Order: sequence, then structure tokens, then C-alpha cells
Amino acid sequence: MTDQSTQQARTPEAPAPEPRSGGVTRRTLLGTAGATGLVLGAAGGAAGYAAAPAPATPLTSVGSDRAMFHVKHQPGITEALQACGHLIAFDLAAGAGRKEAAALLRRWSTTAERLMAGEPAPHDDTDVSRDAGPSSLTVTFGFGHSFFARTGLEKQRPAALDPLPDFSSDRLDKARGEGDLWVQIGANDALVAFHALRAIQKDAGAAARVRWQMNGFNRTPGATARPMTARNLMGQIDGTGNPKPTDAAFAQQIFVPPTGEPAWMANGSYAVVRRIRMLLDDWEKLSVSAQEQVIGRRKADGAPLTGGHETTPMDLEKADAKGDYVIALNAHARITRPDKNGGAAMLRRPFSYHDGIDADGTPDAGLLFVCWQADPLRGFVPVQRKLDRGDALSRFIRHEASGLFAVPGGAGKGEYVGQRLLEG
Amino acid sequence: MTDQSTQQARTPEAPAPEPRSGGVTRRTLLGTAGATGLVLGAAGGAAGYAAAPAPATPLTSVGSDRAMFHVKHQPGITEALQACGHLIAFDLAAGAGRKEAAALLRRWSTTAERLMAGEPAPHDDTDVSRDAGPSSLTVTFGFGHSFFARTGLEKQRPAALDPLPDFSSDRLDKARGEGDLWVQIGANDALVAFHALRAIQKDAGAAARVRWQMNGFNRTPGATARPMTARNLMGQIDGTGNPKPTDAAFAQQIFVPPTGEPAWMANGSYAVVRRIRMLLDDWEKLSVSAQEQVIGRRKADGAPLTGGHETTPMDLEKADAKGDYVIALNAHARITRPDKNGGAAMLRRPFSYHDGIDADGTPDAGLLFVCWQADPLRGFVPVQRKLDRGDALSRFIRHEASGLFAVPGGAGKGEYVGQRLLEG
Repeated sequence: MTDQSTQQARTPEAPAPEPRSGGVTRRTLLGTAGATGLVLGAAGGAAGYAAAPAPATPLTSVGSDRAMFHVKHQPGITEALQACGHLIAFDLAAGAGRKEAAALLRRWSTTAERLMAGEPAPHDDTDVSRDAGPSSLTVTFGFGHSFFARTGLEKQRPAALDPLPDFSSDRLDKARGEGDLWVQIGANDALVAFHALRAIQKDAGAAARVRWQMNGFNRTPGATARPMTARNLMGQIDGTGNPKPTDAAFAQQIFVPPTGEPAWMANGSYAVVRRIRMLLDDWEKLSVSAQEQVIGRRKADGAPLTGGHETTPMDLEKADAKGDYVIALNAHARITRPDKNGGAAMLRRPFSYHDGIDADGTPDAGLLFVCWQADPLRGFVPVQRKLDRGDALSRFIRHEASGLFAVPGGAGKGEYVGQRLLEG
Repeated sequence: MTDQSTQQARTPEAPAPEPRSGGVTRRTLLGTAGATGLVLGAAGGAAGYAAAPAPATPLTSVGSDRAMFHVKHQPGITEALQACGHLIAFDLAAGAGRKEAAALLRRWSTTAERLMAGEPAPHDDTDVSRDAGPSSLTVTFGFGHSFFARTGLEKQRPAALDPLPDFSSDRLDKARGEGDLWVQIGANDALVAFHALRAIQKDAGAAARVRWQMNGFNRTPGATARPMTARNLMGQIDGTGNPKPTDAAFAQQIFVPPTGEPAWMANGSYAVVRRIRMLLDDWEKLSVSAQEQVIGRRKADGAPLTGGHETTPMDLEKADAKGDYVIALNAHARITRPDKNGGAAMLRRPFSYHDGIDADGTPDAGLLFVCWQADPLRGFVPVQRKLDRGDALSRFIRHEASGLFAVPGGAGKGEYVGQRLLEG
């Protein structure tokens, strides 16, 4: 009567070849595709929905772009910001330990690999992403500090996972922070991203329960003609100071070296996650000129107030006619400049968030700040310590939740993420 | 010191010509651009950001597509579904009446016209949409039942705005329903949509306060190769039965006629808004086959269970070998079929929503159902009455909020939306 072969019919008729290296989408972060390997959209194969008598309208690159799962570093770190993001943290269920965690990471890895290829989930696919290409989907897995005691793996816990210090300006909701396990999902289509979130949640089954979950967004590819340094909800260009994959020190700053400690973190990275609420009503009362003083950069194009364009170095010594620094001592850009933080560097890869408008008319909106570094004590922590003391921007933001996660290197073929920890 | 001409520099150097008729984006609903007038993306003019030394990368149509403000019917009704949506309702402030409402609608109309052209807001633009094209932004304004008593305009209140009947399956949160004023915002870029929401909220000033606000989404253009009949978060193709602009009765079903009553609603429409939560945990426990029985259509392609493809008419009399109807008597598609509802028709133009995962792991997700009709008593109401009694789908959904709004016709050049009501 009805077409019972539906699920089977979704399998791509001609699966796309799977490049084993590279692992970046066509729109690579900062446009350095040539330097890090280029994977063209896996047209046809990755889209792979055969059942309907649909005309052969080609997917645009929005749908067909695909990130690879089996790569040196997990996907979702150096890929271009996606339009839609979900962050979700889980705690292991009572009674679940190392064995259950291993099985869960195995399920999750299988699901992530399939969904990132534009295929349905291995079990009970919900069809929500049917018709769509992979849409640059990435799924990234990490372990929180509490994971290790619960699984008897304390000896494998990296020192870099030690809790972040308290910052005086923090107003953290513990219930929305940390967690045993963390998953970051990004895609350029909201249904593809939701589909992945739901599949990851269902894979957790009885092994883990959701601790917290947040939704975010960035620009849609093609909505802007500028090379995409993102803007945040304050209207600021956000990410100018990011290290570039072409920098000599990039890999060293962002990733644990292949010979690093602990061994299971080889090629991994540490993610600091902060839900940073923006006090937009206060911010927007400032003139553009006053906002630019707070940041130290021009709002329109991100150029330093000392002149030039977005990537022109700041002239930190330049003074105005009155003898005041053009870029104030408490300007956000001055404090966060990487070259004066002992070489500290982090790769900021955030999503904006907007969870609606509170009863008093205030938007619950801001930044799901996610930054990546080889060592939080040399990346996020020293910069945040300085910001906590003297950043002119701190009046206009509020850190409401925080998490720190160890994100192992990418899984080899036939391997699952975290296997070297869980079966090491 | 800093570039104080920033705000001015955003004005397009060569404003695009403004077509006075048509008012549809390139991707018109159901692809009938030829029938209703075609406005190509206003490249350059509408994008219109001159300050930065940006390379002349062209916007794709995602960014450059533009809907017109001064059109016969307000934008946001027949335009293709956008990737991002915001619904927001306001109540007039204590002491605010007809005069303040008129001034507010004038401000809102000016803002909507400018933002839809890809220009900054008239006052205190936040820069959040800078660099982006109009991205198919639409802003649509409506009046709720309570508006008319508050403004002394009871005699102008249409009978069609009488409160919807109670439905037995409703579980409505009054605080998230109705409202004096309603604004629908849609765009293919999340920052463009947020920017518009914020501008509309700020325009309200002291005249009105936010009553409720909801965020939604649809597919990103280009993510799917199929002609875009949307899928919802249950994985179903959603909107197959929609009337088409090429139907002879389309205008009559969806819009108040130019000579209709009350006169200020000429060329207007009525929007029914329902926040419909989907009980996804229950739904996803069903097999695909069982889900198809509930709907009466194949999940993969939306074809009726009696065969064919998505647009093949259902064979409602067809029985299986056991003598049972192939499309069950309580199947959602059978109950909602327009041809058996006395010619009732509504144009469904929803957004999906996902407000995160509750503490018990349940997703707060579903449909921001928005449907358009010339008369709710001949559109939404009779269909919902039937669904309320006998829809197999009702076990899996919950109507949590409801609103009904009178959406006047489009504003003529030099006019604001609702002017014929407020100055009539």
C-alpha cells in the first residue's frame, strides 16, 4: 500500500568519494582553502535523496558543501562559521560509566559521520533533513572535567581541564554550564542542524541526560558581499584578531601537538564556551563614536581608530591633540590584542544567540562565545583576566554560563571520537 | 579622529529604482513569479554599503533579493518562506490611544520600507545588518481585537476579528497570545531579521510594550534541491494543500476584496497565529508507516497514500484488501482537504520553532503556524473545528498560544500601514 522502501530509498545511489584528508568545507575560515585542503561540495551523492520525482535542480553550495568527519582535527573548529548552531551538554546517567560512555561515543561518531555526509541517521531517522544536502554540517565532541571521575579515568584527565578561575564580573548559572560531555553542531540550514541535534540526543538513550542546550546563529552564506568577518548583535565586526590558519604558529596555538600530553588528546583542542549576554539597551544608548571608543575600532569596518582598514595593526602609542591615547587604555581591542598577551592566542568561533524578549522588554540575546586553544591557561584565561579587570566593554556584557571541554583529535577511519581515551 | 560620517556613508550611492507594483521577491511562493510580477534583486543599490574597502564580491541572491513595501497587499504573505522569522506582539501603553498608534504605525512603516530596501533604520541604526543585502526581508503589521477599544475605534473593528471559538484540544497560554498590535518579520539572514526586530521594538518607544515574542525558522535557500515545499520538525512535507497564486479563487480566498468591509481592510488579510508544540518524543516512537497513516501521505515525498506524487489528488474512496480506507477517516490530510471544506481555504505560511530542550529532555519545538485568509470563519475556523474533533495528528501536537490579527492592505506611496483606519 504505502511505500515501505522509503528508508532504503534514501541511501545515495552513487555515494560520493570520501576524501581522507583535508576536512574543510568550500568556505574555509578566512578563505585559506588552498592552504589547508579543499573539498568541493559532494553534489549528488551527498544530497542523495532519490525517492521523489523531483526535478534535477542543483543544490547550491549552501546545501552541497560538506565537511569531513575522519580528519586530523575534529570538524567544527577551523571551518567557516555556519548560519545555525546548537550547543548541548550531557551528564552521564547514574550507573553509566566508562563502558556506556564508550558505546555512546561510538554511536555518536557513526551518526555524525553519516549526517555530515548528507545521509540519514543510522537508526530511526526523523526525515527532518531529507531533501537537503549536508549544508556544511559539523558535529564536534568534547569531555568536561566531571567526566573523568564518573568513568574512573581521573588519571587521564588533562591538567588543562582544571576549572577556570573565577572572574569578578562573572554571573554564572551553574545549571547551564560545564557537563560531562559536550557536543557542538553547526550547519548552514536550520533543519539540518535541528535534525542532527535530535539524532545526537536520541543516541544518548539511557546513557546520558541533557544538562543544558543552547541555540545560536550567524550570517547566512551569500547575505553579505564582504569577506565574512562576522558581526555580532552589538553591530561590531567580531573576530578580526583571530589567528589565521596560514600563521606559522597557528597549529601550535590551537591544537595539542601529536606528541602532546595526555596522549589521547593528540591533535585535540580545548574549547571554552561562555554564554555572554549583551546588555543591548545600554549599549545602544551610546553614540556610534562612544561605542567605537569602547572597542577601539571603527564600527563600520573594524579598522583601528588609529586608521587603516580592518587588518591594519593598531597604533597603540598614537595620541590625539589633547595627548590622550586614540585607542584608550581600557579599549577592548587594546586589551585583547594577541601580541601583548605573551603569545596567547585563541581561535574565536562564536554563534550569536537570541532567546526572545523578557517580560520587561529586554532582549535575552548575545554571544555563544566558543574559543579554541591548545591550552586555556595560555589562551582564554590570561586574556579574560585582563578583560575582567579593565575592559570598557564589561559594562555592556554579562557572562552567564561557562564551560571548558577537552576536544580530542579527529577519529581515524574505523575509529570513534575519544576511543584513545576510553579504550586506552 | 574617527570616521563620523559612518552613518551617512551607508546610504546607497545609487538607490535602486523602486517598482511600484508586484512586490514579490525572486523566489515567489510556489514559483509563480511570472504571474504576479518579478523584481530582480536590487544589486548594488540595495546592498549599498560603501564605507569599507571591501572587494566587490557580489552578493548572491540570498542577500540581494528584495521584497517591496509599497504594494497592494502587505509583504510577508505570498513571498517565499524565509529562513528566519520573528513574531512580536505589542500592547499599547497606558494612556496611549489612536494618536500614538497612528504615529507608531507611521514610524514602523518608514522603518520597514527602509530596512526592506537594505538601508539602515531612520534613527539610531544598530549596524547589525550592515554589509548584508535586504535578504528578502519582509515586515508585516496587523491589529488585534483589543486594539479597537483602546483607540476608540470599536466601530471600525471587523466582525472577522471576533475571538476564535474555543477548541477542546487547545492548551493556550493567554500571555503568549493575541495583543493590540502584531508584527511578522522574515528574512533569509538571521542578523538582518534580528536587526529589524530590534528596530521595530525601539520604534515602539513609550507608545507600546512587548506582549510576547517568538522566533522561527525555515530552510535556507539552496539547502535543498527540491522545489521548496517546506518540511516541518516532524519530518513531514508541510504546505502541499496550499492554494496557489495561479488559482482563479486565490485572491478571493486570501485577501479582502478592494470593495470589502470595513473599507480600511481593502486588500488586507486575516492572520491566524498558533504556537503548535510538537510532541516529538511521542511522534518519533511511531514507525514511518504509522506516521504515514496519521497524515495520509507518504513521508518521503508527500504523495497521497493512494499513489502518485505530492500534488496528485487523494483517492478518498480507495480501500485496501481488508476493505479499510487507504487514507483513514481521521487522517490529517483527509480532514484538511480544501475541496471538502466548503471552499474554505487558507494560505499556510509557517515557521518552525525550537526554544531549546526542557529539563526533562523534551524539546520545546514545533510550528509557529501562520495562516492567511480573507475570512477566518471560512478559512481556519471550520478546518480547525474538524481537526479538533477527529484528527489523528492531535495526539502529537498541542496548541499553546493563539492570535488573530487584521492585516490591512499594503500602504500606498507616502502612506503608512493602517492609515486608512487610523485617519479614516
